[in-house]
Amino acid sequence: MKNGWRLSELAAAVGGRVRGDPDRVLTGIATLDGAGPDDLSFLTNPRYRQAADASRAGAILVGPGSELSGKDLLEAAEPYVALAEILERMHPEPTPVPGVSPDARIGAGVSVGRDVAVGPFAVVADGSTLGDGAVIGPGCVVGQGSEIGPRTRLHARVVLYPGTSVGARCIIHAGVVLGGDGFGFATSRGVHRKVPQIGRLVVEDDVEIGANTTIDRASIGETRVGAGTKIDNLVMIAHGVVIGPGGLLAAQSGIAGSTQIGRHAMFAGQSGAAGHLKIGHRVIVGAKTAVLADVEDGSYVTGIPAVDHRSWKRSQAVFRELPDLRARVRQLERRIAELESKSGGES
Amino acid sequence: MKNGWRLSELAAAVGGRVRGDPDRVLTGIATLDGAGPDDLSFLTNPRYRQAADASRAGAILVGPGSELSGKDLLEAAEPYVALAEILERMHPEPTPVPGVSPDARIGAGVSVGRDVAVGPFAVVADGSTLGDGAVIGPGCVVGQGSEIGPRTRLHARVVLYPGTSVGARCIIHAGVVLGGDGFGFATSRGVHRKVPQIGRLVVEDDVEIGANTTIDRASIGETRVGAGTKIDNLVMIAHGVVIGPGGLLAAQSGIAGSTQIGRHAMFAGQSGAAGHLKIGHRVIVGAKTAVLADVEDGSYVTGIPAVDHRSWKRSQAVFRELPDLRARVRQLERRIAELESKSGGES
Amino acid sequence: MKNGWRLSELAAAVGGRVRGDPDRVLTGIATLDGAGPDDLSFLTNPRYRQAADASRAGAILVGPGSELSGKDLLEAAEPYVALAEILERMHPEPTPVPGVSPDARIGAGVSVGRDVAVGPFAVVADGSTLGDGAVIGPGCVVGQGSEIGPRTRLHARVVLYPGTSVGARCIIHAGVVLGGDGFGFATSRGVHRKVPQIGRLVVEDDVEIGANTTIDRASIGETRVGAGTKIDNLVMIAHGVVIGPGGLLAAQSGIAGSTQIGRHAMFAGQSGAAGHLKIGHRVIVGAKTAVLADVEDGSYVTGIPAVDHRSWKRSQAVFRELPDLRARVRQLERRIAELESKSGGES
Repeated sequence: MKNGWRLSELAAAVGGRVRGDPDRVLTGIATLDGAGPDDLSFLTNPRYRQAADASRAGAILVGPGSELSGKDLLEAAEPYVALAEILERMHPEPTPVPGVSPDARIGAGVSVGRDVAVGPFAVVADGSTLGDGAVIGPGCVVGQGSEIGPRTRLHARVVLYPGTSVGARCIIHAGVVLGGDGFGFATSRGVHRKVPQIGRLVVEDDVEIGANTTIDRASIGETRVGAGTKIDNLVMIAHGVVIGPGGLLAAQSGIAGSTQIGRHAMFAGQSGAAGHLKIGHRVIVGAKTAVLADVEDGSYVTGIPAVDHRSWKRSQAVFRELPDLRARVRQLERRIAELESKSGGES
Repeated sequence: MKNGWRLSELAAAVGGRVRGDPDRVLTGIATLDGAGPDDLSFLTNPRYRQAADASRAGAILVGPGSELSGKDLLEAAEPYVALAEILERMHPEPTPVPGVSPDARIGAGVSVGRDVAVGPFAVVADGSTLGDGAVIGPGCVVGQGSEIGPRTRLHARVVLYPGTSVGARCIIHAGVVLGGDGFGFATSRGVHRKVPQIGRLVVEDDVEIGANTTIDRASIGETRVGAGTKIDNLVMIAHGVVIGPGGLLAAQSGIAGSTQIGRHAMFAGQSGAAGHLKIGHRVIVGAKTAVLADVEDGSYVTGIPAVDHRSWKRSQAVFRELPDLRARVRQLERRIAELESKSGGES
Repeated sequence: MKNGWRLSELAAAVGGRVRGDPDRVLTGIATLDGAGPDDLSFLTNPRYRQAADASRAGAILVGPGSELSGKDLLEAAEPYVALAEILERMHPEPTPVPGVSPDARIGAGVSVGRDVAVGPFAVVADGSTLGDGAVIGPGCVVGQGSEIGPRTRLHARVVLYPGTSVGARCIIHAGVVLGGDGFGFATSRGVHRKVPQIGRLVVEDDVEIGANTTIDRASIGETRVGAGTKIDNLVMIAHGVVIGPGGLLAAQSGIAGSTQIGRHAMFAGQSGAAGHLKIGHRVIVGAKTAVLADVEDGSYVTGIPAVDHRSWKRSQAVFRELPDLRARVRQLERRIAELESKSGGES
């Protein structure tokens, strides 16, 4: 059992440097408000500068050149990355004990790797593959012929429809539904006829998917979530969507069918994109934005419908003063009528 | 085992006609990009015309009068309907083997029809009815006194609160919660007192409900989802809502309490309606729209709040040029001041 | 078995008064449309005045001073509160029979209170506490070291991540996920590195949480949902959020990380707040609104971004007539050019 970490030790671990007492011993990490003299805290968002000044923390992790007088500081080039590293060190994630629960049901021809853990009341259907070190939480349902990559973890009650493929080192949170039927109907004379959804869903390596999110399989072909993409809770990704590697999709965002998204795109909370669009690399989509047309690489768009963010902001500024603008137009109409009557009188 | 289908055979099956080689043999269906010479592909959305020209598909399913030179074509009056028919033929949905899993728990007085399948760890509470051919997926919980119609399928982990009624041939996807308590509270002196929700939820025949969608039962009386209505993932339908037959609700849309929606209405993604409204037949609600007032039959509305779509579009066009409009008003003010000073000088 | 209630008896129970026949016997409660001569109905929303006139109800519950001729009335100062009381009396909620299902799995060192009910296929992990009268529905997963307060009910398939604390008399609906990992990543050179989420989630007493809602635990410290808060379906509350007592969050609303919300705040459907904000006491956030900045106590805000509601409404009114406003500006430009040319001609 480790009792604490010296500040110099933490600095070495994250490639940072100490400003203050290198021998200060820290036993935990806490928020600026909650920290005591044995805790390391952190200032990674300038909004909390005042809280940092007032904090009782033993030491504070900061970015380059941060000025916090009277504190022992751990300065790191990328303080939020350093925080992640220190948290991993101080709070290593407990891993479930390997083994298949006697209360789980494993189908015929399932390939179970080494050190796999399967929780109670999980169902793994015929012909599935569980990679080495995979963790299948309690109550999960893994459909026939699915693949779970090495060291991937499904938390409780995740459902995979048949034929779904999840890569290595993924984290799939509770309640997620992967590979469900896409929303495809051919309407004729008022009847919505189901278009069979025969495609599949591929989730690449190192993807994290938040609680109760749903990602449908393709109608035909593949829905694909690129490597390293991180998806928040209650997100909806429709059939046939392709998301490039490194994407970030915040909570309650939604991508409609067949839309293709480039690398390292970012969707903020409650934003969405219509179907059949091409959204470029490194695109940023603001909160509650609705993307209704293609978006070029590197764009930052907001609004309903989405336009260039600065342009939207300028329009939005005028929106607030619209009543005033209308009053000014009325006033102009009065003044010009006055001038016209004078001018008419003169002619 | 079928090895392939001749193009003429598929054309006959869907009431279409062949333009090209009727004897071409196709073994599968693929997207325009993914198809090879043995695949049928399809062009049902004009956006993909270029992909169709470049496709290596053996044959392409198209609408009337489509011109794609150098390809064998299957022309159908309603190509998307034809696609549904061909997919059903080529990829018949595997049906679960009938039988009640020994790991399922069936309550007292449950009526189990012929050829019913109940998966492991499903719970069917006392007094429920499972129609002929019904499928209850693994981990489902069917509350007391519920009814599941013939040939209806609950995928994994669906929950029905007690007394919920689901019609025939419905498809309920994983994680759906039907008949939960409505959000009803009587607030008095800052305390939100729960209003007991004693109504129920009726889902009529041929309804499909997407993953993790929730539909609450009525406070008093019924919530009702009309026959043939199709609902996407993560949709919320509140207590007391009535949706007419043939509705379409896209992902993440939401309908607040007691709102009544006519036949064949369509809600696009992330749209919503406030409570206690009347929304007419065949109404179309655009993406991210917020309906805050009654809507007449046949309307197409968009915006927050929703207005006639064309009207919204015209306003939206001016929204984009608001900074310019404001500048023009400023310029007018300067010019008129100039004229006024001249005019004043003259008087 | 009770056969009915005299109107005078119901009036006494809710502190109301009878206007009409005190001896009328009522056997149930129904909506205005659905009620017959043996039913009590209610008029708590003036929208339904016409339906009340036409109702066949035996008696109608109304607010003070309501005029409905030819009806027996039960007048109450707070009719919606009275409705809640009468519903509780006429339809007492059936409580599950206490007892732990033989198909549930209870871990080591779990403290199980008196009269606890645990359903089949539920998993309660090591070191958890179930208070007296707690109900754990079928298929629930209660993570290690969690606490469930007395008389709290988890409906089917609720998941608690380890260390989650839920207070007394809470109602947690099916599919809810509590205490999941927050969405925290430190991005460096295009790689999103997971920031370990070591905090926890505390849900205070008398909270109700709707189906498939997700509330994440804090990155460090606590996410906290204040006593008496009521949360609808498909709501997302991110890591580190603090909601004061008495909050109301309607369906599909979302609160981003670390935002703090005061007492008795109300979020309407599909609204949201960005992260790291302070939102005051008694704030009302309109439907589909996006709060992107701090909000003062008592404010009513709407729009994207949120502004004072009246101000938004005034701008919105002009938005609708923007095409007309632009036309008027054009007309002014023509008229002024005319005047200028005259004026120039005169000089």
